Amino acid sequence: MRTHTQSIERLVNKFSSLGGVGKKTAMRYAYSIVSMSKHDVEDFCDALIDVKNKLQYCSVCATFAESAVCEICQSRASDTVCVVSFPKDVLSIERAGGYKGLYHVLHGTISPLDGRGPDELRIKELLQRLQNGNFGEVILATNPDIEGEATSMYISRLIKPLGIKVSRIAQGISMGSDIEFVDEVTLARAIDNRVEF
Amino acid sequence: MRTHTQSIERLVNKFSSLGGVGKKTAMRYAYSIVSMSKHDVEDFCDALIDVKNKLQYCSVCATFAESAVCEICQSRASDTVCVVSFPKDVLSIERAGGYKGLYHVLHGTISPLDGRGPDELRIKELLQRLQNGNFGEVILATNPDIEGEATSMYISRLIKPLGIKVSRIAQGISMGSDIEFVDEVTLARAIDNRVEF
Repeated sequence: MRTHTQSIERLVNKFSSLGGVGKKTAMRYAYSIVSMSKHDVEDFCDALIDVKNKLQYCSVCATFAESAVCEICQSRASDTVCVVSFPKDVLSIERAGGYKGLYHVLHGTISPLDGRGPDELRIKELLQRLQNGNFGEVILATNPDIEGEATSMYISRLIKPLGIKVSRIAQGISMGSDIEFVDEVTLARAIDNRVEF
Repeated sequence: MRTHTQSIERLVNKFSSLGGVGKKTAMRYAYSIVSMSKHDVEDFCDALIDVKNKLQYCSVCATFAESAVCEICQSRASDTVCVVSFPKDVLSIERAGGYKGLYHVLHGTISPLDGRGPDELRIKELLQRLQNGNFGEVILATNPDIEGEATSMYISRLIKPLGIKVSRIAQGISMGSDIEFVDEVTLARAIDNRVEF
């Protein structure tokens, strides 16, 4: 007997299926549910179902939206598109605050090892969007790892013939870090990419 | 904009209401839900509702059960009752394996600071059970902290007049611990409560 009843056991398994939730944490969550009022649990369910029913991809930039076109695409006029791998990256850049342009979500990175080629990503849609619109710059904001670099490299080669400026987010030492402990690759890039004071 | 849409924001708030879930973790869970199939999300909801609908307190020992009487009360014959504060303590003792007796769940501890007196706990029910049945021993297994000690002390005084043996789970150094680092109170008790080799 690991939990009190079968229904608790089942709920523990459901919570375990969320990313990064171990058995003990799942049990804690399940017992939180047990101590909630029935009304609160029904409301929880309603929120779960609601997300699945309402959520769709923005038909322009492919981030999450509750209407055909997301709020950013609806409200901003810009000739700059920032290309990111996942919808969560849009949030991160929005949180940073400085950028006021548009986005394009690829929904992945090129990863031959995982069998993910360029056709799996929304690269075709990006090119169509760039050809049909009047864009001045594409910022490639995939992660600075092997897959992200490869994806950015691949996309930049497709965009350059269109005569649109392509840039890559800067790589260097991060704010608050200690040069003593920065890894060598990052430090080398930070020196290569130095900017005049 | 902290999440993509209102429905995600709402779900994040729901996950945050589970014990010990921060905003970032709640967001991770919400986005796991987003990436689940609709069928899996409905199944998740079903499990949540199921727990609330099926779960009740065992009418004998007051632990969680899906029927009027819990599995332990149904299947064991014993003249020993182990008194614990919460249903989860029943699980812990069952996991330890040695004990084959019955339980009684108080659903709390006496805590004057939180305004919880003896009447809030299932002490009346325990006394009724002991008077109506044929019990040989009551083991008090509340936590070895101030509230748990006070609760055990209080209950032991009520049971002794009934002529039933009352015991308290042993306190001492725990398995695998290092005497150098054991706190003083525990070490003093371990010496006081020494048993003959």
